[in-house]
Amino acid sequence: MKILAVKGTRDFYPPQMAVRNWIADGWKAASRRSGFEEFDGPIFEYLQMYQIKSGDEIVEQLFHLTDRGGRDLAIRPEITPTLARMVNQQISALPRPIKWFSIPRLCRAERPQKGRLREFFQWNIDIIGEESIVADAEVIFCTIDYLRSTGLTPKDVVAKISSRKLLAALLKNLGIAEDKLPVLYPILDKKSKIPAEAFEEILKKEIPDAATVNTILKLMDLHSTDKIASLVNLNEDAKMALAQLQELFKTLDAMGVGDYCRFDMSIVRGLAYYTGMVFEIHDAVGDLRAVCGGGRYDNLLKDFGGPAMTAVGMGMGDCVLEILLRERGILKDDTLPTKTLDYFIAVADTTLAPKAVELAAQIRLAGLSCEFSYKSAALGKQLKQASAFNARKTIILGQELTSANQLVVKDMTVGTQTKVDESQFLADLQKTPDGADDTHKKG
Amino acid sequence: MKILAVKGTRDFYPPQMAVRNWIADGWKAASRRSGFEEFDGPIFEYLQMYQIKSGDEIVEQLFHLTDRGGRDLAIRPEITPTLARMVNQQISALPRPIKWFSIPRLCRAERPQKGRLREFFQWNIDIIGEESIVADAEVIFCTIDYLRSTGLTPKDVVAKISSRKLLAALLKNLGIAEDKLPVLYPILDKKSKIPAEAFEEILKKEIPDAATVNTILKLMDLHSTDKIASLVNLNEDAKMALAQLQELFKTLDAMGVGDYCRFDMSIVRGLAYYTGMVFEIHDAVGDLRAVCGGGRYDNLLKDFGGPAMTAVGMGMGDCVLEILLRERGILKDDTLPTKTLDYFIAVADTTLAPKAVELAAQIRLAGLSCEFSYKSAALGKQLKQASAFNARKTIILGQELTSANQLVVKDMTVGTQTKVDESQFLADLQKTPDGADDTHKKG
Repeated sequence: MKILAVKGTRDFYPPQMAVRNWIADGWKAASRRSGFEEFDGPIFEYLQMYQIKSGDEIVEQLFHLTDRGGRDLAIRPEITPTLARMVNQQISALPRPIKWFSIPRLCRAERPQKGRLREFFQWNIDIIGEESIVADAEVIFCTIDYLRSTGLTPKDVVAKISSRKLLAALLKNLGIAEDKLPVLYPILDKKSKIPAEAFEEILKKEIPDAATVNTILKLMDLHSTDKIASLVNLNEDAKMALAQLQELFKTLDAMGVGDYCRFDMSIVRGLAYYTGMVFEIHDAVGDLRAVCGGGRYDNLLKDFGGPAMTAVGMGMGDCVLEILLRERGILKDDTLPTKTLDYFIAVADTTLAPKAVELAAQIRLAGLSCEFSYKSAALGKQLKQASAFNARKTIILGQELTSANQLVVKDMTVGTQTKVDESQFLADLQKTPDGADDTHKKG
Repeated sequence: MKILAVKGTRDFYPPQMAVRNWIADGWKAASRRSGFEEFDGPIFEYLQMYQIKSGDEIVEQLFHLTDRGGRDLAIRPEITPTLARMVNQQISALPRPIKWFSIPRLCRAERPQKGRLREFFQWNIDIIGEESIVADAEVIFCTIDYLRSTGLTPKDVVAKISSRKLLAALLKNLGIAEDKLPVLYPILDKKSKIPAEAFEEILKKEIPDAATVNTILKLMDLHSTDKIASLVNLNEDAKMALAQLQELFKTLDAMGVGDYCRFDMSIVRGLAYYTGMVFEIHDAVGDLRAVCGGGRYDNLLKDFGGPAMTAVGMGMGDCVLEILLRERGILKDDTLPTKTLDYFIAVADTTLAPKAVELAAQIRLAGLSCEFSYKSAALGKQLKQASAFNARKTIILGQELTSANQLVVKDMTVGTQTKVDESQFLADLQKTPDGADDTHKKG
């Protein structure tokens, strides 16, 4: 019976797993550099949780099920609702600001396409309980710090930043009613995703006045905060939001990542829940989907039964990122080893095979990695296997061992061979050598 | 609207996440010491896949769903079927033996109880395509190597090892028909889980002859392979299986883990798919469920539409393990930090707050971790925060900076303070210092 994987999911064979780990390790390292602590929740939650944040339309985009107890559950499509639930549960015990990151596995019942799969991993960072612009800057900085660490430069990626608060104030000044905004945001968010004519068409349907539409179109094209005042009169709210945004850019400059950042009024984000700064990072030259997006959201904790508390966060999926890293030549198929060894043990004399098993075990128990060939094979073939496994050193068991209790140790990088007394080698193993993996000693 | 987590799942707040990571890091390190390569599959597969391996009864133990396309899917309750599917798909391209490990998130729709949750993580190691006893020894060794690395000794855990092949040959010699074996295995597997009388009762129902039942009961109590021949005549199959088992114990002795290992005929494993060596590791003194279990299985790849190929593997869940590690005092609530920092920046003069943001960014961009206080606070309070974050060093920005461009660097371990020219500090940052996280430079 031949069974296949479900469409839109991925099998991670060791080479693909090495790429996934490399991406996740980079995310973790960047998170920790900026002081974020890791959390995670369950892979499924009550279906209702996602309806609260995204409305009933979300249901058909979810993998949902009813368990034996009759509970309606869903595999998580995002982790932000879980974050809100968890923070609310311990709200009085958690020191603030809460700076958490997570790398959840997420599932969405969408039609698989380029950069969008049914199962994926998403880096999330969130700062909860800090309203100053420094928190906005920290989230954008940490995101850029990761991208920079992979080798992506301002020529490759651009962080497009705007403010929902500013946009709301400007639209209000243009005579648009506040209750119209939730309808308008998803439309404005489509600007870069659809042809200009189509965008204008949709906008005209919502806003009858041609002059207003014209001003909005001009606003959407702005890449400098200085020019806003020439298009719309700034009321107090707009002035305050603009000052905050300018302060944010100043901070990002001071943090050394200003050359990645750009004001872009057309960044709106579709979701209703953003309330302040919004940003997306895009491929600077290609036409990929956004690499990541985020912003400030003030109402989510309250919507989940908690107190009113401000938050700012970012989510970056692995699919578009991996495509971009491959397009830029940063990620190549053969750059990441699936296995590296401290030692490989080769046997020049088959009667010494049991000795190889014994010595490998001693090396491993000392905290180093080691392998040997399960089958007897010519020495040359065993050395090839050692190379394929990226062994740093190969120990050759042969007549030196039987006649003089010596191991022949071959350095696989430079190719030199040295003889070492077995007893000395074993004694040296006990002094935790450089490069030994001692994660297990932490507890 | 207050929403709860689903019963039987866990929320991993940073302290719980630190424990989960510590366990997983230990599993990964042990796997890599023994040369296993990491793989993973999707969180859901076709429901049918689990029915092939475990029969239709498995369905009600699964979280299963029908997607919009009408496909019957299930959240994976184990990863072995995925392993079989993946290996079959690339069978001609994969070099053998295949030595893979994985740490899948798994879900089972069971009633939650001590050591058994609806969602858990399970370490899996498998060697496919190697029939020699060395592969059996490697799997058991790697498992023990991990447990030993946490600090568990032979006084804490015992690996109980037996052989399905041996058991089958002995039962055959006792006059039990081969087609009776699949019924008998799950019964014999219950021996240590139910009272002796109840076990005897069930056994008598299946085997009418009292003398045979008596011999089986004696066999089940054996802890030495030497005594088998005094209970049952050994046919050729039994002799061969016994010789293999004795060779396995000899190998485990030579590998230095013999004192963890013990022959135990009552280890049978319930699942039908084991065909050779079987083992379980148990808490040596308490009455916890098995910490892990495994064995040799020869037919799984074939059952999934692939070639006949032998395999040996092991699975260890995180729930029982964590209970055991806590009972032994190896894992304590306060041993694992949720955050460590290379630097914390404290501000003695609030006008220097923007400087803290700037300097923190420079430190992070150089690959080190750094934080600062978002709110202005007394210096003492900031230093307390630095301690709470496990900062190795705290940089104090004060009058030394304004008057002489100097940073005050406090070593948080020994408490000493030194003054460093800011320019010198920044120049030193560029030489990747010891302890810098450079995972991001691997690509």
